[in-house]
Amino acid sequence: MKLYDSIGPNPRLVRMFIAEKGLTIPTQAVDIRAGENRKPEHVARNPHGQTPTLELDDGSFLSEITAICEYLEEKHPAPPLIGSTAEERAECRMWTRRIDLTICEPLANGFRFSEGLKMFQNRVLCFPEAAPGLKKIAADRLQWMNTQMQGKEFVCGSRFTLADLLLYGWIDFGAQVGQPLDPANTVLADWHKRIAARPSAKA
Amino acid sequence: MKLYDSIGPNPRLVRMFIAEKGLTIPTQAVDIRAGENRKPEHVARNPHGQTPTLELDDGSFLSEITAICEYLEEKHPAPPLIGSTAEERAECRMWTRRIDLTICEPLANGFRFSEGLKMFQNRVLCFPEAAPGLKKIAADRLQWMNTQMQGKEFVCGSRFTLADLLLYGWIDFGAQVGQPLDPANTVLADWHKRIAARPSAKA
Repeated sequence: MKLYDSIGPNPRLVRMFIAEKGLTIPTQAVDIRAGENRKPEHVARNPHGQTPTLELDDGSFLSEITAICEYLEEKHPAPPLIGSTAEERAECRMWTRRIDLTICEPLANGFRFSEGLKMFQNRVLCFPEAAPGLKKIAADRLQWMNTQMQGKEFVCGSRFTLADLLLYGWIDFGAQVGQPLDPANTVLADWHKRIAARPSAKA
Repeated sequence: MKLYDSIGPNPRLVRMFIAEKGLTIPTQAVDIRAGENRKPEHVARNPHGQTPTLELDDGSFLSEITAICEYLEEKHPAPPLIGSTAEERAECRMWTRRIDLTICEPLANGFRFSEGLKMFQNRVLCFPEAAPGLKKIAADRLQWMNTQMQGKEFVCGSRFTLADLLLYGWIDFGAQVGQPLDPANTVLADWHKRIAARPSAKA
């Protein structure tokens, strides 16, 4: 396997997942600032022109962070980061999709359509007028997550999972691009400190 | 198991998935037009206040359509609608996430913030100024999917999967809410006819 890697929260999620699994996977850097990911060589690997992309041992390519993590979990079940039973996996997938759709995606497009406009306007459709609203949706759902995390060690209760990694990386990214976590979200802030203390956070 | 069901593309996806599996799962209707899904009784099942929600045999509740379908696939592997191998499942999950994030979600919010505003404005944050842009993103990604489907029977090549069900249901929903498929997408239109001919489309 080989990971086509770059800066940004999505590749970081996969690197953290790999670190939590204790795996070593060779990487090849793709310079997304220079638009290398939109050039034919990378588009042949990922027709969406995004990173990360995982090259499998049969030479095929796999994209989309949650699909990559699910694949790595199936190939290397221990330690479980999605779940050991159908019920555990279901709970993790439920929270992962909620976080993905209602926090990560509006936060990302809120960034692409405003602070990130110069980098993204020639790559994807950008609508600056939508940015403030999308940012408010992400902030609103973070506030909701704060209530949902009350009394829980991790997103899935006592299990550390992919859902924690996804939420953690995007909260970190938000702080870098003008969407910092509202300090009123004290439950989330405490949880964030716990995840930041894990060695994988340096990946 | 029991499915808390309603009108709308998300419950329909799960009903079609259940029909393709040949399963029979009792349902209980939730009247989302009357806001029954936002009342305490349903929020206790699903804190996001959405449908569908699956009640498991242990009395716990599972939400989010892709998590529900993954759970049903694990409990009832035949016929496979996600995949029979890690590689097949990975391919299906990759396409499902692409469709979910770049077509279904902007199409849904494009609707909620415009034609659907009256129903949604007191339930979720709504930003009417974002609607035209979000609709254009969904339309742009449908056009992209049209190029990606060239020469393929289904989204994952010769395998009929969850990715087809997800895309099909949202194209149908778009047509009902002022976001019809551009007839220039002839490859998608032909594929749509093939899915519509399946008995599960009536579910």
